[in-house]
Amino acid sequence: MASNRHVPIHRIDAEASSRLLDAVAVEEPLEIRLAVDALFPGEHTPVSITMRTPGDDHELAIGFLFSEGILRSADQVESVSHWGRPPSGKTDRNVVVVELAADVDISRLERHFYTTSSCGVCGKTSIDALRQERPFPVPNDQSFRIAEEALLALPAALRKEQASFGVTGGLHAMGLFDRQGRLALVREDVGRHNAMDKVVGRLFLDGRLPASGYGFIVSGRTSFELAQKVMMSGASVLVAIGAPSSLAIEVAEEFGITLVGFMREGRCNVYANEHRIGQTTAT
Amino acid sequence: MASNRHVPIHRIDAEASSRLLDAVAVEEPLEIRLAVDALFPGEHTPVSITMRTPGDDHELAIGFLFSEGILRSADQVESVSHWGRPPSGKTDRNVVVVELAADVDISRLERHFYTTSSCGVCGKTSIDALRQERPFPVPNDQSFRIAEEALLALPAALRKEQASFGVTGGLHAMGLFDRQGRLALVREDVGRHNAMDKVVGRLFLDGRLPASGYGFIVSGRTSFELAQKVMMSGASVLVAIGAPSSLAIEVAEEFGITLVGFMREGRCNVYANEHRIGQTTAT
Repeated sequence: MASNRHVPIHRIDAEASSRLLDAVAVEEPLEIRLAVDALFPGEHTPVSITMRTPGDDHELAIGFLFSEGILRSADQVESVSHWGRPPSGKTDRNVVVVELAADVDISRLERHFYTTSSCGVCGKTSIDALRQERPFPVPNDQSFRIAEEALLALPAALRKEQASFGVTGGLHAMGLFDRQGRLALVREDVGRHNAMDKVVGRLFLDGRLPASGYGFIVSGRTSFELAQKVMMSGASVLVAIGAPSSLAIEVAEEFGITLVGFMREGRCNVYANEHRIGQTTAT
Repeated sequence: MASNRHVPIHRIDAEASSRLLDAVAVEEPLEIRLAVDALFPGEHTPVSITMRTPGDDHELAIGFLFSEGILRSADQVESVSHWGRPPSGKTDRNVVVVELAADVDISRLERHFYTTSSCGVCGKTSIDALRQERPFPVPNDQSFRIAEEALLALPAALRKEQASFGVTGGLHAMGLFDRQGRLALVREDVGRHNAMDKVVGRLFLDGRLPASGYGFIVSGRTSFELAQKVMMSGASVLVAIGAPSSLAIEVAEEFGITLVGFMREGRCNVYANEHRIGQTTAT
């Protein structure tokens, strides 16, 4: 399950050109299937195909199903496995089957995430839809506080953990940090949303959600989708190396998430809920 | 239809902190609906919701439908408009209705893009699926050739056209360039795939597809999805400021697309079909 692969390339620069081997980030499709044996014995329901970097596939599948509001707690999951190919018994590394306990409500699967109302769609209806999916209350304002110095040290810490980015330049990273600014978990993927699902899936399987004592840091930009996943996880802070979109800011404001962008060594912009950032380290 | 908006922020740096206004990229949902009046009078079929930066919504809808293999030629489109809200007659800026001519085959809508075969999903099956969607033959090897110097000058030209990126840092740009390296069309969006759909949609509506005399340059990384959209457009070259994924390279190799990555001033890597890059400008 290598996250990078070497390919022959032709490098051109102003003076000369040369042939060499270059490492690129691996991208392959992952199909996520649900099995509800009590309802449909032996059958699988394909839920999604995502283009991802192989590795931590079980976490990715679980994190995705949780963020979509299909899963709520670890006891709803009977098993997670790569699909076995009968009759050989070999497993397929690009298909993950999540077997659900019999009592899980799968009607959510049939609902579309966005409901089109008579007033059409807009940022407000997207946020209204989120409000109904929310599994945890808005983070308690007192539950998380991080010192400026700990915040400003995060990018360097994340970069140090990015095993593959340095090699390929093509992977996004998502890190989970605590209130002292220590990284607890880092996952990489060609897609930011996949890297996030891998972290959230791990927390889910370990019974560590809501992640109210934690924040997330992403190596790129922040969109509605990432802010939504942070909200679902119950975390209090989202820090991005890049820019936020207008709708990411609206989600952060609505759900009490501290949103930080343009995080550089020694500098950042705070777009929402700055009260969680303090002059000194909280204990 | 501003692509950016000013929000109050709190800027933290090592020495001090301050309050100021910062421009952020606007992100809002766009719902794309199809109307086939001859079949279902007065009814709309919602096809997709994408999070996009408002502006060029008609092109985005058309480019998306073309890249998904639903539309083939401009005469299949009866009209494109923002949805009108009865009885007020006001239009909804986040809903676009594409009215199709009666003879369009909409069975493609019902097919899932990826077919799951008994061997599961993998990069190879994804590429096989593309082969069946392909509207144009693989670009003729002789039809496009660009000089190294023209290629290396592209990033500076694209940056100059990026009206909003300089302000927000949050928008991707997609540019269309000819064999002299002149930019013919540039579109921006929070999503790279949206920016690409906006360019392709414009070409479609102008009857300028296949784009065999053109290449695309993207301000970020290259994935399977972007390579797929280039293939569908019939263009010969895809240049990225960032890294390509392994599957983007495979698509480029399979469909005869020249793929360039890590494009910097004066330097780049060529990942596939380097024969289109020459020492001197072709005429």
